[in-house]
Amino acid sequence: MAHNDTVQAAAAAGTAGPVPAAAERLYPAERLDRAADAAARAGLAALLLTPGPDLRYVSGYDAHETERLTCLAIPARAGGGTAGTGAAAPFLVVPRLELPAAQASPAGSLGLEIIAWDETDDPYALVASRLHGSARGRAIGLSDRMWALMVLAFRDALPGTGLALASAALRGLRQVKSDAEVAALRAAGEAIDRVHRKVPGWLRPGRTEAEVAADIADAIVAEGHARADFAIVASGPNAASPHHAASGRVLQRGDVVVVDIGGTMPSGYCSDCTRTYSIGEPPAEVRAYYEVLQSAQQAACEAVRPGVAAEDIDAAAREPIARAGYGDHFVHRTGHGIGLETHEDPYIVLGNKTPLQPGMAFSIEPGIYPGPHGARIEDIVVCGHDGAIRLNTLDRGLVVVEA
Amino acid sequence: MAHNDTVQAAAAAGTAGPVPAAAERLYPAERLDRAADAAARAGLAALLLTPGPDLRYVSGYDAHETERLTCLAIPARAGGGTAGTGAAAPFLVVPRLELPAAQASPAGSLGLEIIAWDETDDPYALVASRLHGSARGRAIGLSDRMWALMVLAFRDALPGTGLALASAALRGLRQVKSDAEVAALRAAGEAIDRVHRKVPGWLRPGRTEAEVAADIADAIVAEGHARADFAIVASGPNAASPHHAASGRVLQRGDVVVVDIGGTMPSGYCSDCTRTYSIGEPPAEVRAYYEVLQSAQQAACEAVRPGVAAEDIDAAAREPIARAGYGDHFVHRTGHGIGLETHEDPYIVLGNKTPLQPGMAFSIEPGIYPGPHGARIEDIVVCGHDGAIRLNTLDRGLVVVEA
Repeated sequence: MAHNDTVQAAAAAGTAGPVPAAAERLYPAERLDRAADAAARAGLAALLLTPGPDLRYVSGYDAHETERLTCLAIPARAGGGTAGTGAAAPFLVVPRLELPAAQASPAGSLGLEIIAWDETDDPYALVASRLHGSARGRAIGLSDRMWALMVLAFRDALPGTGLALASAALRGLRQVKSDAEVAALRAAGEAIDRVHRKVPGWLRPGRTEAEVAADIADAIVAEGHARADFAIVASGPNAASPHHAASGRVLQRGDVVVVDIGGTMPSGYCSDCTRTYSIGEPPAEVRAYYEVLQSAQQAACEAVRPGVAAEDIDAAAREPIARAGYGDHFVHRTGHGIGLETHEDPYIVLGNKTPLQPGMAFSIEPGIYPGPHGARIEDIVVCGHDGAIRLNTLDRGLVVVEA
Repeated sequence: MAHNDTVQAAAAAGTAGPVPAAAERLYPAERLDRAADAAARAGLAALLLTPGPDLRYVSGYDAHETERLTCLAIPARAGGGTAGTGAAAPFLVVPRLELPAAQASPAGSLGLEIIAWDETDDPYALVASRLHGSARGRAIGLSDRMWALMVLAFRDALPGTGLALASAALRGLRQVKSDAEVAALRAAGEAIDRVHRKVPGWLRPGRTEAEVAADIADAIVAEGHARADFAIVASGPNAASPHHAASGRVLQRGDVVVVDIGGTMPSGYCSDCTRTYSIGEPPAEVRAYYEVLQSAQQAACEAVRPGVAAEDIDAAAREPIARAGYGDHFVHRTGHGIGLETHEDPYIVLGNKTPLQPGMAFSIEPGIYPGPHGARIEDIVVCGHDGAIRLNTLDRGLVVVEA
């Protein structure tokens, strides 16, 4: 028997999640109605949400992913919430083994019907029968992270029904954070900033990247996260590989080290912050392009305001880097949204014309990787009415560690 | 920027995975050909494998799950490996950011073409164009855990192609373990057994379930796992809820405590073992049904041999429990396969007529949950030529801890 919740999460929180009052603010009960309305606006007959960020956002239920189906079905509700629209009520289908956990979760307080299925039942047929044919000839929206196993089982259980993504309905809700969500992201940002403050003490010649990453992972939890999600420690030539993780490479004097770290708080909200360190004085070229990088990160932050397209923030970061001749060495998008997922909408990338709105939260993380070294600066920002509000507030200069 | 690999995994292993020789034994290069053959036998045009256990099994690449597509495409190979069958070669599509990681992984040594895509490319169109229309009018097999986001993107990129599950081809391979895989599972079993030996020292009245779970999680890593996956500590009335995790409940004298724990080794292979403890002398009824439970677990193990259906093992566990009048309190299947996933084929459940074969590995974990207490015993076993080989070897009696 097993579940995929991280042990650290349960242990750190001491309970199944945030305290009830905070849970109510972060996961308000009206989300269920708002999701049903959004499904209608997106032209979907219903949303089917399996464990993951969509389910947690709508119901507060942090269910674990397994091969046994847990599914919140939300029939679309046309008419914006007036009574008597004839919409069916949402319901939550869970394996009987998970019934106590579901009832104890915030989803247990939503007045939802919770239907337990037994080991030899067909839960897909159960969901299909409860949708009462209302989905036939229409499309249903599936959680973006639903497993193919379940996608194809629903396809087979609902012949004549089209399959779409729940994000078509939920993106508009999830990418604009409430005040409580911004507060949760701010707390996550403060926690990861505290970890970065300790990093210089761990970057000693003779230690391996993996040893430093282990120290960081412990500190991510010690500083209040429920779990460490990643700890990129990319030193020397590895710093030129933006997604290098942490290897057995031994740190040396003169190394430039990109440290990109993050975790998930007991609230469910994520942190993500990058700073670049140098063990002793860096190569002269690094000093030169680091200044370009810092001005690019600043320019992108300054470009943030309501109504500006996401891709324009990407362009604002790219322009000074290209002008300085490093355009070919900025090989990734400028950022990604963040919330219950480390990566979510809105993506800050060429082609994303989504206009920014107050409450959108995302990373701004340009990088320059000419090799045999590289650098990146990353903050999480929230779009405010007057511009970007940074949730990471550490100094953004190259941090030179005495070797 | 972020990746979803656990930090602990990288830190514990010190590298991206097991040492090369072990990797070669666990993830032999011929798997790619065997998968292509199995796809043909399953009537599929190709397999499309995204990060997760299928990809790791076939290629050794322990890629992390993100919204950016990483996909190993394996065209079916009719003819069992003779040259000149005209089958296209497999190829691996990765985000450019992940190219160094993919090349450094075991997949980098398979002679595969690795194609990097840039941030504004459409990787689904890239995969579709490379399949050269060979999939039209046929079906492709998708990793069972592929995200819906990717499932529907492939559906749209491959009109006229049916969608099926890769497990239709890979189940037959993955559920029969090689000697190297059995050795990896044995090492995982020994590691989790060492953790269970320490549990009595942590079960003290006045401590919370969550505190005990935290001790267990640390020990799971200390005993050689790359990460702790779960630590169920279900005490007193919580022991009657088979999937209870670990709460703030304070342990008391007289509690029966179900401890169900597991992790993933650096090899990628998983452990999972349950023992039931009692803090001081348990209620008399527990003594009575525990004896039934132990005989049921023994009977199910003794029923294991090649050719017996998986569901017959379930029946063998259920019969003595039902005979003793506890049938209604054994509310879950008897077990699940285990390997690169904690839960995988073959499932030991009514309706699964799969005949056992030597090399199949699975849990045998009957439970009795009459409330306000409950008990479960779980071992991982491998089907050998002459019967079950247990990979957990601790005593299976109720462990009474002095309170």
